[in-house]
Amino acid sequence: MLIAEPLQRAIDELSKLPSIGKKTAQRLALHLLKSDKDAVESLVDAISALKNDLCFCEVCFNLSVEEKCDICKSPKRDHSVVCVVEEISDVIAIEKTNEYNGAYHVLGGVLNPLSDITPDKLHIGELIKRIESGGINEIILALNPDAEGDATSLYLTKILKEYPVKVSRIARGLPIGGDLEFADPATIGRAFSGRIQL
Amino acid sequence: MLIAEPLQRAIDELSKLPSIGKKTAQRLALHLLKSDKDAVESLVDAISALKNDLCFCEVCFNLSVEEKCDICKSPKRDHSVVCVVEEISDVIAIEKTNEYNGAYHVLGGVLNPLSDITPDKLHIGELIKRIESGGINEIILALNPDAEGDATSLYLTKILKEYPVKVSRIARGLPIGGDLEFADPATIGRAFSGRIQL
Repeated sequence: MLIAEPLQRAIDELSKLPSIGKKTAQRLALHLLKSDKDAVESLVDAISALKNDLCFCEVCFNLSVEEKCDICKSPKRDHSVVCVVEEISDVIAIEKTNEYNGAYHVLGGVLNPLSDITPDKLHIGELIKRIESGGINEIILALNPDAEGDATSLYLTKILKEYPVKVSRIARGLPIGGDLEFADPATIGRAFSGRIQL
Repeated sequence: MLIAEPLQRAIDELSKLPSIGKKTAQRLALHLLKSDKDAVESLVDAISALKNDLCFCEVCFNLSVEEKCDICKSPKRDHSVVCVVEEISDVIAIEKTNEYNGAYHVLGGVLNPLSDITPDKLHIGELIKRIESGGINEIILALNPDAEGDATSLYLTKILKEYPVKVSRIARGLPIGGDLEFADPATIGRAFSGRIQL
């Protein structure tokens, strides 16, 4: 099979990305080949900038271009409320709602003894230090509603009991626009046990 | 919404690629952020090389790193047979079969008067020159079996009648592993009219 080496290399590199198979990688590579030079350069610059221009906020471990991220620096945000999430993508998901105006704390994962992810591998110590340095009234746990997320929430709740902060967890129940008929039993069960009085 | 600017730019650039939406672009960008620097650099290099290291073969318009592509240069290939295809991706698809040992000629598209693609926009003139310079016995038309591909095949057949070359078209019929029950009427019709004696 005689594919020009640079094309084959681009296909191989692109197919290393998640959800991109060999066929899609080939389509992307041939698309880039046909695109004009400026478009390809701005893509390359943007990808390089990801590694070169971004770091993690020293306060909340969100992405940042400076030592402190835009959210931690913003005077408009309520820094007495801290939402604890697993990953940076969760911050993005919550920011998109425009419903939350507090600060964040990115753990960088969840507890998982099988994968050897113990509390010291997550940014839990830094969270405790933030609470100890004062000014925080409420911690909202917004970890994924799965076994590891629940275990991590439970662990954090136990630790945080020693500190004068309110600890809450985001609600579980039927998703908006969801269909009760097609919801799984665990979700319906949680929706019942978490019902609120009207 | 407070997403760090370099991340937002990478998401925007990645989502310009075909079949990549905003959600996938965000996933890819966050994946690249987490990848180590070497992996990101080799991706960036591979994409840049696509534009910098590749050109089109001056004989067949296939991709090449030099003036002539590997297929045109190869002494093992039969240069008396030329397969005419629409795009470079068709060359790759045919090469993957390991069934064809001749040369290629990439037209760079198909005739489409509505999109203002006239014969002079395709590499038809160059094909004629190749035939005129001698050494070619057979032209195999391997254009896509659609209206534009058929129109282009018809156009080429008429032009090539004036030259002492055999002109053939790749067969149409049921695809291997296909199911007669689910094949469309046009394909079944072609399979009948193109039946071969056993």
